[in-house]
Amino acid sequence: MRNLTEKTKKSEPIYKGKIITLQLDEVELPNGNTSYREIVRHPGAVAVIAITDENKILMVRQFRKALEKTIYEIPAGKRDQGEEPELTAKRELEEETGYVANKWTHLVSFYTSPGFADEYLHLYIAEELAMGGNLQLDEDEFVELFAFTLEECKELIQKGDICDAKTVAAIYHWELQQIRASK
Amino acid sequence: MRNLTEKTKKSEPIYKGKIITLQLDEVELPNGNTSYREIVRHPGAVAVIAITDENKILMVRQFRKALEKTIYEIPAGKRDQGEEPELTAKRELEEETGYVANKWTHLVSFYTSPGFADEYLHLYIAEELAMGGNLQLDEDEFVELFAFTLEECKELIQKGDICDAKTVAAIYHWELQQIRASK
Repeated sequence: MRNLTEKTKKSEPIYKGKIITLQLDEVELPNGNTSYREIVRHPGAVAVIAITDENKILMVRQFRKALEKTIYEIPAGKRDQGEEPELTAKRELEEETGYVANKWTHLVSFYTSPGFADEYLHLYIAEELAMGGNLQLDEDEFVELFAFTLEECKELIQKGDICDAKTVAAIYHWELQQIRASK
Repeated sequence: MRNLTEKTKKSEPIYKGKIITLQLDEVELPNGNTSYREIVRHPGAVAVIAITDENKILMVRQFRKALEKTIYEIPAGKRDQGEEPELTAKRELEEETGYVANKWTHLVSFYTSPGFADEYLHLYIAEELAMGGNLQLDEDEFVELFAFTLEECKELIQKGDICDAKTVAAIYHWELQQIRASK
């Protein structure tokens, strides 16, 4: 396998925001030429496939300014610095939905947009749910809670009301899990 | 359902790059309070689940500066302005792998990071592959081509060498497709 690494020649900070930062890196390409990479730094995130006793998946409906759209997503949130991802997942599930879960499983972790951002998302499965009560949204966070069957999720994907990578991946996995369980 | 829309009060351009732009929006929240949203604009992308006659999936190995890692991803690329996504998909598959496909199916489209970016990715399935010959990478693009079985893909996910949202979603879907085909 070839060494495809790009060496950093210079890194210029462009913007430091509340959530993301932007930098422009000057890099040496594998062939020795120079190029530039625009890079967004993000603290990382968690998302939760939370399955109810009636075999429905919890979804939050929320407005996303970047899309100018209100969409359904699985519960998710940014990591606080130094916080263990599983703790973030437990905290976000309770804060966004009011539910706690007895059984937690790490499913997979992935980068959401590797071409320009380092956001790394840890996806968990939460089962054996119970009401926790500590519903507590961030002061700029407004969501509505729903629970959908797999068939309803597939219809929402078709209609484009479920339309983000983590939620689509979550639903595909949930279908695989149901197929395996039914065997 | 509640109206969760956030009205834009002001939008400040922060940075205009080669690929992404960054803006800071001042918004009115549903409760009338003011908040700020950091928003990355991206031209959109396509990605391709390309299945060979031996039932393997094509993958490109490439270095991602944002992650400082070399990873395996399904073939993908940014959309040119005004270009139909299916054309972009056909172009990117041929440019990155040298393959053309006779059968194209749109699977799903999703936002990769709806919390801060408007990148919208169209995912296609390409079947009945043949060598096209027009292998032509961008001048700052260096990739290696691989073809993996489903089992190999699952191992690469476990090892973290496949670790981006679109590729993980693609592999989950490919497994679902194989299960359906075997029934």
